[in-house]
This record gives sequence, C-alpha cells and structure tokens, in this order.
Amino acid sequence: MTLPAPLSGVVPPVCTPLTPEREVDTASLVRLVDHLVAGGVDGLFVLGSTSEVAYLTDRQRALVLDTVVRHVAGQVPVLAGAIDMTTPRVLDHVRALTKAGADAAVVTAPFYTRTHPAEVMGHFRSVAQGSGAPLIAYDLPSSVHTKLTAGAVLELAADGVLAGLKDSSGDEAGFREVVVGKRALTGPFAALTGSELTADSALAMGADGVVPGLGNVDPAGYARLYRACRAGDWPRARTEQERLCALFGMVRAGDPARMGPSSSALGAFKAALHLRGVITCPATAAPQIPLSPEETKTVAEHLTAAGLL
Amino acid sequence: MTLPAPLSGVVPPVCTPLTPEREVDTASLVRLVDHLVAGGVDGLFVLGSTSEVAYLTDRQRALVLDTVVRHVAGQVPVLAGAIDMTTPRVLDHVRALTKAGADAAVVTAPFYTRTHPAEVMGHFRSVAQGSGAPLIAYDLPSSVHTKLTAGAVLELAADGVLAGLKDSSGDEAGFREVVVGKRALTGPFAALTGSELTADSALAMGADGVVPGLGNVDPAGYARLYRACRAGDWPRARTEQERLCALFGMVRAGDPARMGPSSSALGAFKAALHLRGVITCPATAAPQIPLSPEETKTVAEHLTAAGLL
Amino acid sequence: MTLPAPLSGVVPPVCTPLTPEREVDTASLVRLVDHLVAGGVDGLFVLGSTSEVAYLTDRQRALVLDTVVRHVAGQVPVLAGAIDMTTPRVLDHVRALTKAGADAAVVTAPFYTRTHPAEVMGHFRSVAQGSGAPLIAYDLPSSVHTKLTAGAVLELAADGVLAGLKDSSGDEAGFREVVVGKRALTGPFAALTGSELTADSALAMGADGVVPGLGNVDPAGYARLYRACRAGDWPRARTEQERLCALFGMVRAGDPARMGPSSSALGAFKAALHLRGVITCPATAAPQIPLSPEETKTVAEHLTAAGLL
Amino acid sequence: MTLPAPLSGVVPPVCTPLTPEREVDTASLVRLVDHLVAGGVDGLFVLGSTSEVAYLTDRQRALVLDTVVRHVAGQVPVLAGAIDMTTPRVLDHVRALTKAGADAAVVTAPFYTRTHPAEVMGHFRSVAQGSGAPLIAYDLPSSVHTKLTAGAVLELAADGVLAGLKDSSGDEAGFREVVVGKRALTGPFAALTGSELTADSALAMGADGVVPGLGNVDPAGYARLYRACRAGDWPRARTEQERLCALFGMVRAGDPARMGPSSSALGAFKAALHLRGVITCPATAAPQIPLSPEETKTVAEHLTAAGLL
Repeated sequence: MTLPAPLSGVVPPVCTPLTPEREVDTASLVRLVDHLVAGGVDGLFVLGSTSEVAYLTDRQRALVLDTVVRHVAGQVPVLAGAIDMTTPRVLDHVRALTKAGADAAVVTAPFYTRTHPAEVMGHFRSVAQGSGAPLIAYDLPSSVHTKLTAGAVLELAADGVLAGLKDSSGDEAGFREVVVGKRALTGPFAALTGSELTADSALAMGADGVVPGLGNVDPAGYARLYRACRAGDWPRARTEQERLCALFGMVRAGDPARMGPSSSALGAFKAALHLRGVITCPATAAPQIPLSPEETKTVAEHLTAAGLL
Repeated sequence: MTLPAPLSGVVPPVCTPLTPEREVDTASLVRLVDHLVAGGVDGLFVLGSTSEVAYLTDRQRALVLDTVVRHVAGQVPVLAGAIDMTTPRVLDHVRALTKAGADAAVVTAPFYTRTHPAEVMGHFRSVAQGSGAPLIAYDLPSSVHTKLTAGAVLELAADGVLAGLKDSSGDEAGFREVVVGKRALTGPFAALTGSELTADSALAMGADGVVPGLGNVDPAGYARLYRACRAGDWPRARTEQERLCALFGMVRAGDPARMGPSSSALGAFKAALHLRGVITCPATAAPQIPLSPEETKTVAEHLTAAGLL
Repeated sequence: MTLPAPLSGVVPPVCTPLTPEREVDTASLVRLVDHLVAGGVDGLFVLGSTSEVAYLTDRQRALVLDTVVRHVAGQVPVLAGAIDMTTPRVLDHVRALTKAGADAAVVTAPFYTRTHPAEVMGHFRSVAQGSGAPLIAYDLPSSVHTKLTAGAVLELAADGVLAGLKDSSGDEAGFREVVVGKRALTGPFAALTGSELTADSALAMGADGVVPGLGNVDPAGYARLYRACRAGDWPRARTEQERLCALFGMVRAGDPARMGPSSSALGAFKAALHLRGVITCPATAAPQIPLSPEETKTVAEHLTAAGLL
Repeated sequence: MTLPAPLSGVVPPVCTPLTPEREVDTASLVRLVDHLVAGGVDGLFVLGSTSEVAYLTDRQRALVLDTVVRHVAGQVPVLAGAIDMTTPRVLDHVRALTKAGADAAVVTAPFYTRTHPAEVMGHFRSVAQGSGAPLIAYDLPSSVHTKLTAGAVLELAADGVLAGLKDSSGDEAGFREVVVGKRALTGPFAALTGSELTADSALAMGADGVVPGLGNVDPAGYARLYRACRAGDWPRARTEQERLCALFGMVRAGDPARMGPSSSALGAFKAALHLRGVITCPATAAPQIPLSPEETKTVAEHLTAAGLL
C-alpha cells in the first residue's frame, strides 16, 4: 500500500516479542499485530526504539519486518525504523526495508559520531536521495544526542525530503512550531508525537497522529483518545489521557538502583502484554535486566487500575 | 598470531582511505599499513572511530579487516573494533572479525539505549562469553555517553573478561587508577591511552601503550616518543610530545561554523596522509563535510612546521 | 497582602529596566508595572531569570523589589526570586525579600555545587523552615542543572513546604503529573507553567496559571488567552496562543554567532518594551551583548505582525 | 604582599571549618592555616569550591577572608574566590576581597545564565577593568557548565587580563596547551592545576603549581611531591603521587545512594582534618549530608594507610 497523505491517527511502535532464548517470537508478534489492529490503530511502526531495534541483529530486524508486512497485508500502513549511526549504514537498512515492503522509513540524526547541523541536514537529504522510500524523521535526542530543530524539519519538508516527523523529544513547544509551520507546506506532511502523556495536547495543537509505546498495552485507549480529540470533545479526551497517564506509571516498575530506564519501561510493556495474554514471554534483549516478580506485580496493578486485567 | 601479553607500544587506529565514490580504497589502505609498520608501530587498530567505523557498512568493515589482516600477515597484532549499539549486535560483529583473523575485539559500552552500570557490566561479560576473542574495552564517553569507571574496568579485568582498555575518555585521573590498579591483577592487561596529547604523561604513569589517531600522520614520532618514555628520558619525551601536540593542531583546520569536529579532525588526518603521498584521495564518508582548499593548506602548514612535508 | 490560595492567572516575570549605565531605572520599572497591571495580569514575579536576577547585585535586587512592592501597593500579589547557590545564601535572600514585602519567595534547587536528590529536598525544607514566607519551587534545569521530579514536588507540597511550582523545565509530561497529583493535596498549591508557547496546553491540563516572560511585551494577550482557556473556548485560545507563539519568535532576533540565548531573548523583550514606549532604555546587564540596530528591527517586525506597534 | 610573578608551588584551597551550628569556626580556621603553612605550602586559596564558598553567606565569606589574611600576615600570598553568577555580582565580591587584603581574585565563567564565548571573554575583561586585583581564571566546568578554552585563556593572558589559571576541568590536554602557550607571553602567568591525582603530570608538562583540595589533609605530601618534580626526580614524584592518589580515595567514603559527590568529598576532607586534630568539628554546610560514623571510619582507614594517623 502507499502511505496515506498525510499519515494520521494512532501508529504504535510495535514491541518485538522474544523467546526465552532471545529469538524473535513470530507467533507472539503476529498476535500482537492482531491485538493492535483490533484495537483500532491506523498504522504500525516496527523497528523503533520501543521495538528494541537497537538490540536486534540485522537478521532479526528482517524477520520482524517480514512477519509484520506479510501478516498485516495492507490493512494499515507499516512504517519501519532504519536505525543506525550514519548515512551509509542507514541507507543499507532503508534499502532492505523498502524491499521488504515497508511503507515508509523512519530515520534519526546520526549518532555515535559528533555532527554539525549542516551534516544532519546532509544526512537526511542523502538518505532520501539514495532510497525511494517516504522518509520520516525521528527526533530522539535522548538516544542520538542531537535535537532536530523545527526550522530544520520544515526546511526538509518543504524540499520534499521528509514525509513526516515522529517527535519523541519531549519538546512540545518545538513540536508546535512544526505543526503550525507545516500549514504553509504545499505537500502532505505527517506531524506525529511520540509522547504517551501529552497526546491530547499535541492533537489539540494540530498534530496528525500519535506514536505511543504504551499503545502496545492499550491500543483501544489511544484510539478512543484520538477520536475524542478529533471530535473536539476535550473533557472526554482529558479523562482518557489521564487514565493513560496513570497506566504509563508502569514504566517505573523496575528499581532504578538495579536497572536502566529502558529495561524498566520496555520490561513493563512486555510484562503487560504477557499478563494480558498477547505474547508468550516477557523477555527483553541483552543487556537489559528483567523485572522481578514483585516488579511485575506492580505492572499488573497498573493494568487492573486501568481496567485492563 | 596471538595477542602479546600484555599488548604494548604504539597501536594507531588506522584511517580508512576512501575513493572519491566513498568506496574503501584498498590500495591506499595497504600503503597506509606499510607506512605505519615502517614507522615502527607495535600493532594496528582497525575499525575504530578514527577509522570512520561508524560510517562503514558491514561489507566495507569486512573488506577493511580482510585487507589489513592479509597484508600485515602477522608482522604486528591487528585489533578490530566491533562498534554497535548493544550486546546482540556487537556479538555479530565480534564473531565476524574473529573469523576474519583479528587478534582482539575492541568494544564500547552500549549506546543509543540508556543503560545502567549493571547493564554495561553484563554487556561486556556477555560479549566475552559469546566470543572467544580477547576483549579490549573502549572508553569513549563522547560517543557513547557512558563513562567506564576504573572500578568497573578492574573488576572485569580481574574476572578475565577484559584483556585491556583503550581509554579515550580524556579522564587521566581515572586512567591512572586503572594503571595503578592493574598491578594487583594476576593476568596480563593492556592499559592503553587514546590521547594524542598526553601520551608521555600516560606512559610515565605506567601505561602499556598509546593508540593515537595522529599516529596515522606521524607514526615514527609516536614510536620515538614511546621509546624515550620507556628509556626514562623525560626531557626528550616532552620535546617529542610537544612537537606532536603542535602537529595535532591540524584537527582544528575545519571551520566549526561549517562542520563538526569529526569532519575537521578526520578530514585533517586524511588530508595529511594525502599530502604526504600515502593515500590517493582525502575523502571522508557521508555526511561528513570536506575540508576546503584553504583548510587543507592549514593542514599542510602543520606538516611543514613538524618537519613532515 | 496575602497570597491567594492558590495563586492563579497570569503572573509575568517582570523585566528589570536598566539605564545606559546599567543601574536600575526605577521610573521605567514603575511604568512597566503599570503596563502589566493595566494589561490584566493577576500577579507579578520580580527577580526571576527574565528579570536578570543573576546579573543584579544585592543592592539592585533590593531596589527592584522595594520599587515594585511600594508601587503595586497590594493591587496584585508580588512574588520574588531568591536566586542563589545553596541553602544559607538563599535563606539570606528570602529573609530580605520577606521583610521588603514580597508575598512569596521563588526558589530553585541548589546550583554550582553538585547535589543528590535528598539534598535538594533538604534544601527546600530548610529554606521553608528558616523563613516564614510561602515558598514556590522554581524548576529551571537549563540554569541549575537539576530537574525537580513531580514526585519530589508533590511530596514537598503534601508536607506544607511548597505553596506552588513555577515549571520552566519544558517537561510538559512531568508538569502534568504535578497538575493531576495536586488534586489529592489537602492544602492549596499553585501549579504554574513558565512556558510562553504551550500555556493553552498547560491550562487545558489544569494548571493554575502561567508565568510568561513574553507577558512583559503583551500582557493583554496572555490575559485573553487565560480567560479563553478558563471559559473552555479552545479554538479561541489556540488562535491567541499561536499569535503569541509567532510573537515569541523575537527571542531569536540576536545572531547566535555573536551572543548567547539570554542576550538574544532578554534583549528582544527589552527592545520590544522600548519600542512600545514602556521603558526608556533597552540595555541588558553585563556581560550580555546588545542587539544590533538590524536585530532590533527584527523585534519591531514581530511587534508589527502581532498588532502591537 | 604582592603576588609572586608568577605564583608557583602548592596553593591548597582552604577548607572552611564550621561549628555544629554551621557558623565559621575561626579558631579551627586559624589552626588549619598553621597546619598548611607548617606543611610547606606556597600560598593559600580561600573561598574556593573546596572552601564551600557556594554555601557561605557574604558575611561568612568576609569573616573567613579577614581571619586568614590577618593570621597569615604576609607569610604566603592569599588568593580568594569571587564566586558568583555574573559580572556585576562578581565585581561586588572582587572589590570586597581586595579591600580585605586578598592578593588575587579567583573568578569563574558566568553560571546560571547561558552564555556565549564572547560573553565569557567580556566577563573576564570587565571584572579585570572594574577591579585592580590580579585576576586568576577558575576553569570548573562541572560547576559552571562552561569550559574555558586554552585559546581564550591565552588571549586574556596576553591582553593582561589574567594573571593565572586554576584549571579544575580535568582536561589535561587543554591545560597542556596553556602551559606550552604561556611561554610566548611577555608577562608572568601562573598555570595551576586543580587536580589532586595528576599533579606530577601537570608539573612535568611545565605547570607552575598545584591547588589540591587534598592538600588540606596532607600539605606536606604535596610539598614533597612538588619538590621532587622540580628536582626532576620522577620516580620519587610518582611514588609520592600514588600515595596521595590512594589517600584521595577517601572522597568516595560517602554512600552515593545517600549523598552527592560534594557532601562525600568535602565531608571526607573535614572528617580527616578532624581526625588529625586540626579542626574541632567536621560539619559541612547545608544542604550537604554528613558522613555516617562508618563512613568516617573509612576516612580514618585512608589516613592510616597513608601514614597520617
């Protein structure tokens, strides 16, 4: 299928279920896709940070994408992350995922190496030129240590380099500048927020959609939230958003004295999917540290409080 | 060959010469290896940051390593970087480079993902366990945004996980703690500094060796510096070190208003190798920005002042 | 007067007009206060970052506060910043400003020294205990390099240490946690956002008020925005907010190659107040760099576009 | 007295002994000064970070300086920190301490506010112009979040703005650039390192002196180290330095789960001075957290191991 113009709605970054041996559990992945589509999502984003893309080998990345593309079979668009350090390595991934049937590639600024803003611009331009895929910029300074400015994003959009932005920077003011600025563009451009906690604010500003990691756990909740916002029913949107904010508290289930924020948050999402019967095993990839039984109980309590267990 | 126990001396991180089309220029790479060996280096480190490893595709990485291993043919040990985001991806690289004949793998802390110190420890332990290769930790917080503490390095060394440390953190006090602490180890452990500018200090503290990017340009200078330090001839060492410090000024040739520090520094090293007739083309990989003719002239002036042109 | 419980509405951080010799221009300050009160603000915050508190000597701080307290004469509450590095120094300021008639003290986490979260908690507790003034926490990680977590703020609020929060962290999700969490408090607590650009979002979440630096330039605009939000007229609020967002673009008038963000933003606010005839001289304190005539023209263009000139 | 040209040798930053009520304990301060002078130091630096300057009120700062200047009575030069956020506030302090008899003022880059390099330069120039005191730049990026580049320091030195540098940045390569660059200056300039752990390296590079916080605990050790370096007796210098490195381990006595690095390090220095009988009470200023009895025992063990108890 081709990417809607612009892409909009709820597009969760899809978790990657693993077996106890840390292989991709394709049966669970297929069930997760069904769970998301049944929940009313408008697209899927595989191989993002929430998908543990940084932990998946190239072979595993290909298996994930192939599994999802085949199973979705065009019901909703499939975006795929091409997450690597620099232009030549990203281009390798973009080519592979385009060939495998992804509808768009999601690409960050370079990382590991220290870049100048002009190099970041050149990076996106070269990736777009070297691949035919619609390109969505992924603004994730906590991982790549570069912030994409609104000015840079809008310039790349105006030049036809970018088809959209997934903003996971937490900088709502900067995101707003993109949302307002995109009205002057002649072509379609999808302004998507990655924030689980201010999705209603972003949609009120005029965002096209949301890409919430927590959407794995409660896709129907985000679908309801999206519809309430589109209908201008702000009191209902706020109530739904606040319920999801409370649910999001699960990401702190893991003890910060024992593990990093990624282990805790992705561990919680996977524990919740396991508890809800969607996936077979809650394992996360190495070197992440698993939640303890007690920490998993905390996740269960969040599910219960949100009416999901 | 097997890794000396411990590895010592001058082990430059080898630049990766590229063609104007940004392919690996194997003929230039072979000449560069000869230039380094003739300069008196004690080992070679390929696929490090100075090698633009972050910019090389997996195919290019394999080509670089294979070219160097074959050409060196055991004259000196060849270390190779296995630079990727997390344990499973690093393990893929380590297996590939061990198979290709590298004598040791050089591995950083995880990056892109945010980790806990316990996860960093688990990362090195898992990589060591999953590969037979001697493992050298690469402390490079400017790239990976995690600092390896001396305590962590010494614990991993005591447990047989690490065969050495390449310290490019700029934290001389922390490095000293490793150098002093390693005396209590029962096995061999190579404490190597990545600093071009304080190699004499590090060797005076008791470091085993130096891994200077500038060693591409002047391997004989670092070899003289190393010998002077080993002989306890500190005045001569200081004079040589200060000459190399002045030469290192070339890394600022590139205008910071136009390009990042990587473009400027790696561009300068490659321009110098080109000016000295070692490599055919000074190109750096995308999205790095090339030095201008005037900036290249600055590099030439540094070479002349150092007696190298 | 006593602080409303809780403080709400528009509470701009008041610029400190200076003479060309960098003395406090009390006549201009009085006119600025009149301009703000006439614009419909609900309180004044003097000696905050926008007031150049970091640049004012203790004598100047006292003069500013005294001038404003006398002139306002109880029409609206006056909050005052007690900005210094640690507990003993902050306590000195809090005592002075309470004596001078401020209705509340605004206090950041310690800075310059590196602190543990437990020390930050102890800091606020000690300042509250050592002074009788209502205490408002000022979350400004870009200046103090510590983020106040929602959990910490809510704990201090529950314990009666804090009467409110001024959140200038840009972390809307964290601010939302405070806004939602404060509903469980038994006493009054003012959740105020410092964001000029997402005031409507913050108020939609349930914030009590806004503390916008840009409110110096257009107090009536923020007063209209606040009323529209309170009335639930979100389309009108968004239109007003977007007009203010465009106006805020003036903070980038200064060339970043020549000056820092503080010089540019505070220089623009003062240039705008000068152009609007409110203050006599647009000077900012040393070592800030003044806007050029051309940069000042950019400020004027923003005023014109927003209908303010 | 006037400042030696250039200042050289061991110039410890003097701890500020406090009473249990957190008042300056002048009797202990006088004993500490005697302890340092008897240990062979070449100067004293009061009101620096190790002196808890960030925690002292202006009244306490004045008391400390007055006490030390009177007691030292010209035996050695007394440097004093003028630590505050910006130019006008720093000037107030510099004028006060000059009047009180300090031989030089030690000044950092601005903090709390975000500055451009040009503003940092303007800051030092304005402070020098507005005061007659010899000015020593204090490079402390961990506190002020700005790094003074070697180029900036040397430019200010060449222009007669700076009489010296106290480098506590940990950037030995940058410090070396100053040490080498200062040879081209026509006037005297003191290049002093703040590093406790690489004093021998710095002196080998050509540094004029050292400003070690640990020098409070063992001034005679640093005096021996300095003399060994000046005599070119590097093996003896290294042995002494390594003994001091081991002693410095006391700064980790405090549990990082309970307190920040400042509480732990300054708490350890004061505990050591208390254990050695130099000061009456080991208290540190609020909101620092005191060492536990067990943590104090760790300090004692370090003293015993170093032959100081």
